[in-house]
Amino acid sequence: MNYFMKKKLDNLSSFLKKKIAKKNVKIGIIGLGYTGLPLAIQIRKKNFVTFGFDIDKKKISNLKKGISYIDRIKNVELRKFNRKLFSSNFLNILYCDVIIVCVPTPLNSKKEPNLIFIKNTIQNITPYLKKGQILILESTSYPGTTRELIVNKLRNKFNIGKDFFIGFSSERINPGFNENKLDKIPKVVSGYSKNCLNIISFFYRKIFDQVVKAKNLEIAEFSKLLENIYRSVNISFINEMKIIADKMNLDIFEILNIAQTKPFGFKRFDPGPGTGGHCIPIDPEYMFWKAKKIGFEAKFIRLAADINIQMINFIYKKIKDILKKSDVKISNSKILIIGIAYKKNIDDLRESAALRLMSLLSKKTRAVDFHDKLFKNKIFTRNFSFDKKSINLNRKKLSSYDIAIIMTDHDYLDYEMIKKYSKNIIDCRGKFNLSKNIFRG
Amino acid sequence: MNYFMKKKLDNLSSFLKKKIAKKNVKIGIIGLGYTGLPLAIQIRKKNFVTFGFDIDKKKISNLKKGISYIDRIKNVELRKFNRKLFSSNFLNILYCDVIIVCVPTPLNSKKEPNLIFIKNTIQNITPYLKKGQILILESTSYPGTTRELIVNKLRNKFNIGKDFFIGFSSERINPGFNENKLDKIPKVVSGYSKNCLNIISFFYRKIFDQVVKAKNLEIAEFSKLLENIYRSVNISFINEMKIIADKMNLDIFEILNIAQTKPFGFKRFDPGPGTGGHCIPIDPEYMFWKAKKIGFEAKFIRLAADINIQMINFIYKKIKDILKKSDVKISNSKILIIGIAYKKNIDDLRESAALRLMSLLSKKTRAVDFHDKLFKNKIFTRNFSFDKKSINLNRKKLSSYDIAIIMTDHDYLDYEMIKKYSKNIIDCRGKFNLSKNIFRG
Repeated sequence: MNYFMKKKLDNLSSFLKKKIAKKNVKIGIIGLGYTGLPLAIQIRKKNFVTFGFDIDKKKISNLKKGISYIDRIKNVELRKFNRKLFSSNFLNILYCDVIIVCVPTPLNSKKEPNLIFIKNTIQNITPYLKKGQILILESTSYPGTTRELIVNKLRNKFNIGKDFFIGFSSERINPGFNENKLDKIPKVVSGYSKNCLNIISFFYRKIFDQVVKAKNLEIAEFSKLLENIYRSVNISFINEMKIIADKMNLDIFEILNIAQTKPFGFKRFDPGPGTGGHCIPIDPEYMFWKAKKIGFEAKFIRLAADINIQMINFIYKKIKDILKKSDVKISNSKILIIGIAYKKNIDDLRESAALRLMSLLSKKTRAVDFHDKLFKNKIFTRNFSFDKKSINLNRKKLSSYDIAIIMTDHDYLDYEMIKKYSKNIIDCRGKFNLSKNIFRG
Repeated sequence: MNYFMKKKLDNLSSFLKKKIAKKNVKIGIIGLGYTGLPLAIQIRKKNFVTFGFDIDKKKISNLKKGISYIDRIKNVELRKFNRKLFSSNFLNILYCDVIIVCVPTPLNSKKEPNLIFIKNTIQNITPYLKKGQILILESTSYPGTTRELIVNKLRNKFNIGKDFFIGFSSERINPGFNENKLDKIPKVVSGYSKNCLNIISFFYRKIFDQVVKAKNLEIAEFSKLLENIYRSVNISFINEMKIIADKMNLDIFEILNIAQTKPFGFKRFDPGPGTGGHCIPIDPEYMFWKAKKIGFEAKFIRLAADINIQMINFIYKKIKDILKKSDVKISNSKILIIGIAYKKNIDDLRESAALRLMSLLSKKTRAVDFHDKLFKNKIFTRNFSFDKKSINLNRKKLSSYDIAIIMTDHDYLDYEMIKKYSKNIIDCRGKFNLSKNIFRG
C-alpha cells in the first residue's frame, strides 16, 4: 500500500468516527424480532436515524402502522421512528453506515445449527454493501460464524479492517426484564481486526453505557454461548436435584431457600418444567455441534438437554400418581394447564414446555385446557396446534378439573383462588408449599 | 404424659435456654480438624467454656502445648482455651451441655460413604450422654444421616425433643478464606423436632451473627450437599468448556473475562487441574450413593466427577505435545510442579490433583520435582508418597526443567521470575497470557 492510499484509508476510519460522534451515521437493523426490535428502539432513542429490515412483510406492515407485535414493547415506543424506513427491501442498505444483523439462528430437524437466515441475509445485502460501512452480527452462533459466513464472503469485495469493518457483538436481552433498559447492560463487542474493534466500540459507546472489548470474534461468540450454556446446565442440574429431593419427600424450593443463604460460591437457580425460549434450549446445541466437528463430545451440554426434555415425564408421572390416588382413570381425566409461556410475564411460546405437555396430555386425557391471559387466540406454532382458547379462571371452572398444573407463574394470576378451588395442584414453580393436594412438578 | 411431667420437661428447655443466655453452658467439640478446630475457636471467642475431643492423640498433645497444626490458625488463637479441656478421652462429655460432632465423612475404596467416624463417635460417647444435653452433627453427609445414625440410636435412651435435643448444622468453612470470621457466615440449623430446632437456634445465635432455620434435618443435610455439588458441577463444566476452547485455540480465561461482565444470570467459576479438598470431590458422592439407593442415577454428579478426574489427562497430553515440539522424549524429560496444595494459600493436600499428576509423571519422566513453600517436608499421604522435598525456585533451577506446571497459584510465588526463566509453562490457573511457550493446562 502506498503512502497516499494508507492515508486515505486511515482517513476513512477517522472520518467514520467523526460522523458517529456527530450522530451523522445511519443505522440499519436486519431482523426485527425479539432481539432486533428492542435494539432498534434503543438506537433510535439515542437519536440515530434508524432503518429497519425484515423479510416478514407482516412485521413491516405492522411497524409502518406503529403497531408493536411484542407484548413488552408498547406502540408508543415506535413513535420516534421515521416509519418510511421500515422495509422488506434491502435497497436501503445502501444508505446505512452501520448494519446490524439480528436474524434468528434456530436448529434444523437434526438439532444442528441452521444458519440459513445469516447466509441469506449476507447474500441479499451484498449488492448494496459499499466501502466505509460497518457490518455487525448480533445473532448468537458458534465460535467462527462471523469469520466463516461474513468475513470470508466479503473478503474479495473489500479490504476488511481498512475500507470495510466487520464485528460480532452479543445480545444480552432478558425477555420480560430488560428490553427497555438495554443501555444499562454491558455490551460485548469484537472485531475482525483492531481497527474494526475500535470503530465498532466507538459506535456502541454512543448507545450503551459500558462496552466490553473481546480480543477477537471467536472469544465474543464463545462468551455468549458460555453465558447461556451455564444457564442450561444449572437449570437442568437443579431439576435433577428436584427429582432426588422429591423421591426423599423433600421440597427442593425449601432446600434452595436454605442453600441460598450461603454468601459465597452459590447461585440459586430455580427448577421448572423444562427450559424454553430461543436461548437456553437452542444455543448450547450450537456449541455441541461445533465441538463435535472438531472431535470433542461436550457431555455437559448433552446431559443438560436430555434432562430438560425429561422433565415432562416427571410431571406426567406425577399426574398419573395423583389420578391413581383419586381413583380417576387418565383417559377419563380433565387437566388444566395454567401458564403456557416459556417464562413468566411474557407472551413467548418458543420451545415452551407447556406445549409439549399439552401435546402429550391431549392424547392421554379426556380433556386438557389452558389458561394464560397473555395468549388470547388459539395456538398455532411451527410444531404444535391447539384448537382451544385460554379459559377464564373462576371457582366453578377450577373445581371442574382433576388437576391444575402451574407451568408458568405469571404475576397476574390469582394464586389464592387457584389454591382454594383446585382439586389437586402440580406446582412446577414453587408458588405453594406442599400439602396433601399440592405436589411439586 | 401427665401435667407435672410435661411441666418439668418444658422447664428443662427454658432452663437450658437460660443457661445458654448466661453463657453458663459448657460446649464439647468432637473432631478437631479443619472444621472442628476453627469452630471451637469461634465458640471459645464468645466466652463459652469449650472442651475439645479428638481420637488423634498427636493433635491433642499439640493442642495441650498450644501448637496449631493448621497453617491458617495461629498458635495465639489457642491461648484462650483452658488446655486441660483437650482430651482423647470422652469422659468429659459428661460435663458438656452442648456436644458438636465434627468428625470426617470420607469415602471408602468403592467411593461410597464411610460413616465409621460418626458411628464410632456416637457409640463411644453414649455412656456419657445424659438428659438435658444438646447433640449437634456438623459432619457433611447424605440426607437422613442424623436421623439414622443419631436419633435412631438414642431413641431408647431419651425422649428426644423433650429431655434430649438433636440437630444437624452444616459447616460453611472455606479453607484459607473464612476460618477466622466464621461468625459472619449465616449458620444453617435444623432439629429433630421444633423444640430441638428452637433450642439449637437459640444456642447458635450466641455464636453466629445470623442463624437460618431449616424445616427439618434432611433439608439442612440436603442443602449442604447441594451447595457443594453445585460447585463440583460448575467447576467440571467450565473445565469441559476449557477443553473445547483449547481445541479452538482460544483461552478460556479470556472468555470468562468477557462472560463475567453479564450483570445477571452468570457466575464465574475458574477452570483448574481438577478439584481437591475434602468437600468438592467427596460430598457429591454422598448424594450419588443415597440417590442410587432410592433408585435414581444422579447423572450430573457422575459426569462432574468423571470430568474432574480426566483433567490430569488433559494436562498430560499438553506435556507430551510440548515435549514433542521441543524434541524431548518424555522418558528423558524433567518436569517441575509449582504448587501442590489443592487450592491457593493453604497447606492442604487432601485429594489434590497435583499429587495425582506427580504420581503419573514419576512413572513416565526422567525427573519430576515440586516447589511449594507451604510444604516443607517429604510428602506422605494415605495414597501417595513422594521422597523429595520442595525445591527452591531460582533462575538456574527453573531453566533446568523442560516444563514448569502451575498447578496451584499461591500468592507468594514470584510469577515474573517463573515466566522469565522457565523453558515452557503449563498454566492451569490463568496467571499468564498464552504465548509461544506458555500453554493453558
